[in-house]
Amino acid sequence: MDGNGVPLRCLAGIRVLDLTQFEAGPSCTEALAWLGAEVVKVENPQGGEPGRTAFVGPPGSPDSYYFFEFNANKKSVTVNLKSERGLALVKELAKKADVMIENMAPGTIERLGLGYDVIRALNPGIIYAQVKGFGEGSPYEHNLAFDMIAQACGGTMSITGEPDGPPIKPGPSLGDTGTGMLMAISILGALYERRATGQGRRLQVAMQDAMLHYIRIAFQQQAATGKAAPRNGSRSVTGSPPPAGIFPCAPGGPNDWVYIFARQKDHWHRLLKVLGREDLIGNPDYETPEARRGRTEEVNAMVAEWTRRRDKHEAMRVIGAAGVPAGAVLDTMELMNEPSFTERGILQTVQHPTGPFKMPAWPVRFDGKPPLLTPAPLLGQHNEEVFAQWLGISAADIAGLRREGVI
Amino acid sequence: MDGNGVPLRCLAGIRVLDLTQFEAGPSCTEALAWLGAEVVKVENPQGGEPGRTAFVGPPGSPDSYYFFEFNANKKSVTVNLKSERGLALVKELAKKADVMIENMAPGTIERLGLGYDVIRALNPGIIYAQVKGFGEGSPYEHNLAFDMIAQACGGTMSITGEPDGPPIKPGPSLGDTGTGMLMAISILGALYERRATGQGRRLQVAMQDAMLHYIRIAFQQQAATGKAAPRNGSRSVTGSPPPAGIFPCAPGGPNDWVYIFARQKDHWHRLLKVLGREDLIGNPDYETPEARRGRTEEVNAMVAEWTRRRDKHEAMRVIGAAGVPAGAVLDTMELMNEPSFTERGILQTVQHPTGPFKMPAWPVRFDGKPPLLTPAPLLGQHNEEVFAQWLGISAADIAGLRREGVI
Repeated sequence: MDGNGVPLRCLAGIRVLDLTQFEAGPSCTEALAWLGAEVVKVENPQGGEPGRTAFVGPPGSPDSYYFFEFNANKKSVTVNLKSERGLALVKELAKKADVMIENMAPGTIERLGLGYDVIRALNPGIIYAQVKGFGEGSPYEHNLAFDMIAQACGGTMSITGEPDGPPIKPGPSLGDTGTGMLMAISILGALYERRATGQGRRLQVAMQDAMLHYIRIAFQQQAATGKAAPRNGSRSVTGSPPPAGIFPCAPGGPNDWVYIFARQKDHWHRLLKVLGREDLIGNPDYETPEARRGRTEEVNAMVAEWTRRRDKHEAMRVIGAAGVPAGAVLDTMELMNEPSFTERGILQTVQHPTGPFKMPAWPVRFDGKPPLLTPAPLLGQHNEEVFAQWLGISAADIAGLRREGVI
Repeated sequence: MDGNGVPLRCLAGIRVLDLTQFEAGPSCTEALAWLGAEVVKVENPQGGEPGRTAFVGPPGSPDSYYFFEFNANKKSVTVNLKSERGLALVKELAKKADVMIENMAPGTIERLGLGYDVIRALNPGIIYAQVKGFGEGSPYEHNLAFDMIAQACGGTMSITGEPDGPPIKPGPSLGDTGTGMLMAISILGALYERRATGQGRRLQVAMQDAMLHYIRIAFQQQAATGKAAPRNGSRSVTGSPPPAGIFPCAPGGPNDWVYIFARQKDHWHRLLKVLGREDLIGNPDYETPEARRGRTEEVNAMVAEWTRRRDKHEAMRVIGAAGVPAGAVLDTMELMNEPSFTERGILQTVQHPTGPFKMPAWPVRFDGKPPLLTPAPLLGQHNEEVFAQWLGISAADIAGLRREGVI
């Protein structure tokens, strides 16, 4: 365990009953866990939630790297939801929970008899949260969805790609984690309210709907132009004037590019100094964004001629230090190996039974340090602890439940 | 005003002193405003925060559509931070605030004499939040950044694009709004804690660091393969087997595509029925993802032959109803004109002085409805109200401050 994180207790005492799987739900409850909530995953005794095994893990591990990433700092209990006694157990847990959350396929939680009306009757103060692909009332509310379906239907793909090319799926799993973050904010708002009012809430978010929140820059572009927002390659959807975008660097590998954005006059002047072209400062043929738009190829070529002779790190260092917004395109390996991320606790190493795993932590620092990561739980690792503490079930009775296949 | 939103009071009584600009900061404080916090923007009397005017707005409006989108439900006061009396006024406001937040260029807030140590001494219980491009302790902590710089340096570009093409900037402004959401979660956690402990917090997030949170799917891919995560066009970074990705639809416009993802056996079988190729069900040459990988072109051509003869809406309807994850690629105009978003309050219309503006609302529904949007404030619209209510300044004194250029 690195010493670069700090255990947070912001949500100490908050109990989250977590019936989520894969990423949209788990990313949400993990954020709550990092803030100090007690998050208890309820999993199928036969293999657990599918995220444990749908991806690759380290040799000898029952669980995937994916599961490690989205389930740190949580607890795991097993409950067989196909058994009446298992369902009764979940209802008992729900009575003790502050938050219950699920992201099953549409209609599944209701068919299990664990829908909102049932749970609210048992625990009127509960915050009951649901994540689906499409919203209740949408023409597609019964449809299945994954991250990429949400990104297709939510507009993010339509604004990603080259202007004359097909739509491209943004690499980030915005449909999943992006949605999970909006639900986490809503749960936290409802928890704050509940402390004053005792009032529970039903919260619902759809992955398609959540995508609109992240492309508001495109909606303003549409409002300004009267046309659907375009794809602009490496430039912003607002179509910044040159130089703006990525420029090729030595030695020419797939991610050997540097982003440069010099729209403002002072940034343009500073960039000209870096390029050794002080002669152009004040030249009306280049001085304004509009003037440069008429010379896009020429301006970009001038910048690229300089960047091609540097590697991306040098280019970023020199241009950035001159006061011009610039950034090297970094790949996941370069990020993983950048010492600053480890020193600052943005990457932390957790000790799983199969060995250490270095992964991104919650990137917000609290009084200087991000929350400390602890490993994702093994399947059913906290059966004894949670059933005893939440429900007062004895060790002997827990053993009985296990023998009978209830947990 | 549509009747499809509900005013929320989850954070009633919470005062947020908001010195942010553009998007990363404003998206964060807007989320708090939608939850019912009193968010007061502190703006330059000369033109306000740059987001008001850096983009296009409706005819006759002093403010841009961009500003409308990121500043709904907030209040605005003007304070001249170049005046000693203006700075003193901000300190008085800080004494009354629960949260103070800024996203100025590195070092600026400290040079103004409004840094963390100063403010904490005035108000030990304050939650003091800062959003920067690069983290304190990073080699680039003094560098300027915008959304696209964060996306270059944070890995999101490296995993977006065609496999043999250059990196592409994801269209969503993840560097801005994506970061803002993580800070909102952290502020809410600190507020919850503070209610129990009275303890303030210093919160810091860097846009580069925040990007790692949204590409964890790529980090697991790297862990699994030992190589930097690749670009995979419209497929996930995990490189799903065919059919997975976008397929062309009639009439062939730039966004006439449908996403289809049929990795699971039951999804593949259902898709074969839709295509009228029941004969292939159970055929070992196509039955497993591995078998189909060896026939990627053939499988994709089979699907495209069907999709090309439908428009994307029909394709999504038919394939989705068959129980296969599928989604039409929708552009911003199609989303804006989809009635379901308006009926469900995901899009709401706010009445600005220059007329109505329809925009995305907070997409999470609370007991069935999203928070009700109210218009972004005019510059200084709430001077009288806020200076009177927070500081007890009389109307006559406020008039004097205005005459003297302090506000």
